[in-house]
Amino acid sequence: MINKERLLYDTIRPVSWQNNGLRLLDQRQLPKKEVYLDIPNTQALYQAIKDMVVRGAPAIGIAAAYGSVLAAKEVLADQTNDFDGAFNVKLDLIASSRPTAINLFNALNTARTVVKTMTDPLNELLQWANEWLADDIRANLAMGELGASCFSKNTRVLTHCNAGALATGGYGTALGVIRSGVKRGLIDKVYAAETRPWNQGARLTLWELEKDHIPVTLIADSSAASLMQQGLIDWVVVGADTICMNGDIANKVGTYSLAVLAKHHGVKVMVVAPTTTLDLSAKTGKDITIEHRASAEILPDHYSSELVDALNPVFDVTPAGLISAIVTEKGVIESPDVRKMAVLMQQD
Amino acid sequence: MINKERLLYDTIRPVSWQNNGLRLLDQRQLPKKEVYLDIPNTQALYQAIKDMVVRGAPAIGIAAAYGSVLAAKEVLADQTNDFDGAFNVKLDLIASSRPTAINLFNALNTARTVVKTMTDPLNELLQWANEWLADDIRANLAMGELGASCFSKNTRVLTHCNAGALATGGYGTALGVIRSGVKRGLIDKVYAAETRPWNQGARLTLWELEKDHIPVTLIADSSAASLMQQGLIDWVVVGADTICMNGDIANKVGTYSLAVLAKHHGVKVMVVAPTTTLDLSAKTGKDITIEHRASAEILPDHYSSELVDALNPVFDVTPAGLISAIVTEKGVIESPDVRKMAVLMQQD
Repeated sequence: MINKERLLYDTIRPVSWQNNGLRLLDQRQLPKKEVYLDIPNTQALYQAIKDMVVRGAPAIGIAAAYGSVLAAKEVLADQTNDFDGAFNVKLDLIASSRPTAINLFNALNTARTVVKTMTDPLNELLQWANEWLADDIRANLAMGELGASCFSKNTRVLTHCNAGALATGGYGTALGVIRSGVKRGLIDKVYAAETRPWNQGARLTLWELEKDHIPVTLIADSSAASLMQQGLIDWVVVGADTICMNGDIANKVGTYSLAVLAKHHGVKVMVVAPTTTLDLSAKTGKDITIEHRASAEILPDHYSSELVDALNPVFDVTPAGLISAIVTEKGVIESPDVRKMAVLMQQD
Repeated sequence: MINKERLLYDTIRPVSWQNNGLRLLDQRQLPKKEVYLDIPNTQALYQAIKDMVVRGAPAIGIAAAYGSVLAAKEVLADQTNDFDGAFNVKLDLIASSRPTAINLFNALNTARTVVKTMTDPLNELLQWANEWLADDIRANLAMGELGASCFSKNTRVLTHCNAGALATGGYGTALGVIRSGVKRGLIDKVYAAETRPWNQGARLTLWELEKDHIPVTLIADSSAASLMQQGLIDWVVVGADTICMNGDIANKVGTYSLAVLAKHHGVKVMVVAPTTTLDLSAKTGKDITIEHRASAEILPDHYSSELVDALNPVFDVTPAGLISAIVTEKGVIESPDVRKMAVLMQQD
């Protein structure tokens, strides 16, 4: 059992608006250094998302929401006649930074729509982006409670990648559920998979849980199966970068692997993500674009011959049939399917 | 299709007896440097196996066989009255270096037996160890042919860890089958999983296949599932550190994971290992001791608090039911079980 007395919650803000500018926690430098970068313009934001200064689908969405403020500022400074046209070009640049996290496109497309009704875009977009951030944190707190309600006592969880405060506005999605589960005294053990090739688990999830005094045990991704074989895992709890209309999801590579292993061992799988992660245009996982990053992220420096290369997909698709529960701020969908997802869509 | 014209075979000897001493290829320094270390005594050999200068179950067995020569030399220099007793103490030290590779114990126990009938232990043990090495290479060449016979044309294989020339006397077990398959023109594509935490795939398998001009594509361990989902893998081909009497096997952590994933996707699993890998005392996988190595192998330097730790099992157990074929030098056992294993035992 985890010592609840020492617990902290909600201490991390990876994306914020400070001193009239966008500030990002540089996640490439964690866990060694906690460094914040000021992002002066849309070009810098494009690069920061691409280079993974900020990562995690909801956090990217929030950064993009604030990016619309930077875009408006630049367009107004240019004194163009076609505000909407120039604004959309700036947002297109931000949108091209990474392909799989749907929250990025959802935030930018919402900005494109709401800006049309604004008389003072700069201030009103900032207010809207602040709301986008506040909504995200509220959603995470709500999901934390909903997700934790699925746990029995003495639950042992395995999480993959970092779907924590660092990946969101704060509190986290998967780690939000784990925080709430710990708060309720339901969680005995948290395992974090190191999550190759970028080691989000080893670098970010461990850092974040340690900061909140939640004990955590790191494992290599490929030892999850043997832990399940030994009966040491009750729930796999992960986030999502995209949720499709039939309940298929895309998340960090290795999630699909864990879901297949979970099914084989009778372990449950919980996907935690706000409704900003829904892709209304994706009927199934086949419609999701999977990002492939550079070979150099996994290939040792030594190799340069044409005989040796690497395949580095950084997301994978988990079909709805392998998911026990999708937790959104609007409710928990057990054994998701196209009908249940449609019902969720219709809720306010 | 792989270009057969440029292929080389059997160029690597990780364990050898040279200039009256044991020489090991230092696998910790690959792929950056190809450095050979002279191992002067049993204490140094114990440390070299423990520190993974030499690794891979058959290669550890061969190093241990030569270790018996070092042991005999030390005991004779000590001029003790109880040769057998002192010899066994030296061998006990070597045996305590690592727990899971059964070839280590099989080689040492054979040395304990054969030495009793020797009149000139030093020279006769060396001759016996040379035979142990030669038998291993012969077995690998035989397994290569037997295993490759299981492949259809245009086969795409995924291998895990390094069960290659580097893990054996030469040619390799799993990589021996892949070499033979390439030679026969049956293999279209070789994927190598990086194999955390020690990266045997990224460091050793890539180095070894590049050296023999066999093209290879590296993947993160946890993207194997998504490759299988896309229908890109026909066979998972791996070695073994122990084979039990019912066909359960222990191999590098992640093997069990791949076997479960393979079953889910209708992909076949081939385990390639010489009969020196059989553990007559292990009825099932439950009887195998799984080595856990230091947390530091996977935990980033940053963490030192009591809140953060790591679990680092470096092997896992794959039950016989998930294995399509065990390939030994005595033949191929499809869908292994206790009866078929007993038949194998009775063969010469």
